[in-house]
Amino acid sequence: MRVYFDNAATTPICEKAIEAMTAVMRETYGNPSSIHKDGRQARAAIEEARKTVANAIDASIGEIFFTSGGTESNNMALKCSVRDLGVRRIISSPTEHHCILHTLESLENNGVEICMVQLDENGTPDYADLERLLNTGNKKTLVSLMHGNNEIGAFLDLNRVSELCRANNALFHTDTIQTMGYYPINVERTKVDFLTGSAHKFHGPKGVGFIYINGDNVLKPFVEGGAQERNMRGGTENIYGIVGLAKALELAIDEQVERRAKIEAVRDHFKQQLLEHFEDIQFNNNAEDAVYKVLSVSFPPSPKSALLLLNLDISGISASGGSACSSGAEKGSHVIQAIKGDPNRKTIRFSFSHKNTLEEVDYVIEKLKNMVPVKETVVA
Amino acid sequence: MRVYFDNAATTPICEKAIEAMTAVMRETYGNPSSIHKDGRQARAAIEEARKTVANAIDASIGEIFFTSGGTESNNMALKCSVRDLGVRRIISSPTEHHCILHTLESLENNGVEICMVQLDENGTPDYADLERLLNTGNKKTLVSLMHGNNEIGAFLDLNRVSELCRANNALFHTDTIQTMGYYPINVERTKVDFLTGSAHKFHGPKGVGFIYINGDNVLKPFVEGGAQERNMRGGTENIYGIVGLAKALELAIDEQVERRAKIEAVRDHFKQQLLEHFEDIQFNNNAEDAVYKVLSVSFPPSPKSALLLLNLDISGISASGGSACSSGAEKGSHVIQAIKGDPNRKTIRFSFSHKNTLEEVDYVIEKLKNMVPVKETVVA
Repeated sequence: MRVYFDNAATTPICEKAIEAMTAVMRETYGNPSSIHKDGRQARAAIEEARKTVANAIDASIGEIFFTSGGTESNNMALKCSVRDLGVRRIISSPTEHHCILHTLESLENNGVEICMVQLDENGTPDYADLERLLNTGNKKTLVSLMHGNNEIGAFLDLNRVSELCRANNALFHTDTIQTMGYYPINVERTKVDFLTGSAHKFHGPKGVGFIYINGDNVLKPFVEGGAQERNMRGGTENIYGIVGLAKALELAIDEQVERRAKIEAVRDHFKQQLLEHFEDIQFNNNAEDAVYKVLSVSFPPSPKSALLLLNLDISGISASGGSACSSGAEKGSHVIQAIKGDPNRKTIRFSFSHKNTLEEVDYVIEKLKNMVPVKETVVA
Repeated sequence: MRVYFDNAATTPICEKAIEAMTAVMRETYGNPSSIHKDGRQARAAIEEARKTVANAIDASIGEIFFTSGGTESNNMALKCSVRDLGVRRIISSPTEHHCILHTLESLENNGVEICMVQLDENGTPDYADLERLLNTGNKKTLVSLMHGNNEIGAFLDLNRVSELCRANNALFHTDTIQTMGYYPINVERTKVDFLTGSAHKFHGPKGVGFIYINGDNVLKPFVEGGAQERNMRGGTENIYGIVGLAKALELAIDEQVERRAKIEAVRDHFKQQLLEHFEDIQFNNNAEDAVYKVLSVSFPPSPKSALLLLNLDISGISASGGSACSSGAEKGSHVIQAIKGDPNRKTIRFSFSHKNTLEEVDYVIEKLKNMVPVKETVVA
């Protein structure tokens, strides 16, 4: 048995997206920029996908641009708003994804002021502190805060931040890579300037994402080249990826309510079983609104749990220590550090999809009994 | 009948690449950065692909980095060599692809000196002029010249430019997007600092490419994020694209000689038939070493030929006016302008693959008889 509890790292592509992609691979081979029939067919597939994505978040078609993924989208939002919109100060948080944090370091080296908002013990930004930061200084400011944290599931109140930014004349970028397709997101109701998404987090393909850029913001491309994406992103479009992204997003939104119910049932059963069977279990985010697909569990120090991830893997269970992108390094998680997690405890992120089952939870619980301290009462 | 003579714009994906990609889509869903078994499977597929690409050009595995395509690779080579290697002057040519030219404009706005080498009537750089430029000035210099021009097939003597750059202590970047898989390229024998390729030009997928970076050059990433690609390119890897790229490149190199013979037969037959049947046919590149897959034909001014591309398309023939990337605009080609082409004549780029046939050529010739002036002697 193999249990995949690492769906915040990436999700399996859904079969309907694979079918849509392979059909395009075989039948639609023109360059979308070519004006002949083969090119127009490819163009039509991309524009159809753009309409799907625009509808999914209630944006205009002209506000959606396809990229090579969430990381490129986030690079673009930050770097281009500095280069093209005069942003000289960015308010962000220490628990953002590395593609934000490393980009912020680069921008700081180029003279942009970077401020970090304070977080509560669950990793949620302190909105009063954000307001205070927005009220100080007179530089053109961008706020960049993720909608749902990938490691601990801290959840941002988008409406609240949107209103704070509007009231203080700041631009607002939100990384919705972990939440797109999982929560209703509507840029008509909630004003954001930039919003970024990645297909492989919602059962679409890797290597493709998008950026929503509010029509009021006029940027130049981050990847410069041909006139693709209305002169906003050079490079022949990843047409299969784009078609797969749209199909997967459409399904994620159509099935959002039922998928959420399944995932919450799995998570709740897992939480309950962990608390029932094991000693001193803690969770790294106890907020009620924590992103439902992520459960970051903190196990007590124990000689048995030193190689916990490795032992889980050997037992057929895929989970992770922090984000996947930096997991090769096995450094401590910057997110757990930021929320002042006890470095002697062992954090494992379990993250779920609607494909997971209660039986898989039971399997993981059984295996964990050999790896972390069980409760005396249960053993007795 | 539909004839696809636009293979310099993009090529159909070969079936073996599609099969390799769909297998990965269904079976290998882990995040390549994850350390568990699902992740390691994905990582193994990428590293296998990297080995294939490294072998294809005789590079070290550690010198190959996957990107979202040729455009990103070219952006990276230019922008990162300025940012990270102290380049303050770039020698290039006016017939480069727009992803080079637009990037050069940006860099020029940031204080980098841009020099354009003179070209001969076939669009080939004047090597004496290049040497003269390399001999002047004392700024750290990068030469960026494409190996094969996408519109007229002008072909660069890589060895000669490589030696000129070495002798003058300049860095050398070559865009091999049109030639990779079509000509032997060996970076062990021909020293280049940066070399860029794109899968969809050699019957691989769109949305994926690579950059070779000579191990002597230490760059920081263009797309900043996680530790992917040895910290050189953030973003979860497009694993299917990477696998498809490697499979297509492997086939292109294995079958290079026979594919070339097929394409040259098609091109030669087309040239001969054009000259035999039509008035005042010219070619925009008469060099013996012109890239064999591209034939840029210059038709004489004629009322019939005003809508030539449109009429070809209606007759089932896909060809192009210039590069695909800017074809939506239908502005005059910057390449034809640079080689001082007569603006009253009509340029059509026909570009071939090994899938094309002599029968297709005959079909196109027949259709052209209704569109451009035929020779009196033939009509008589």
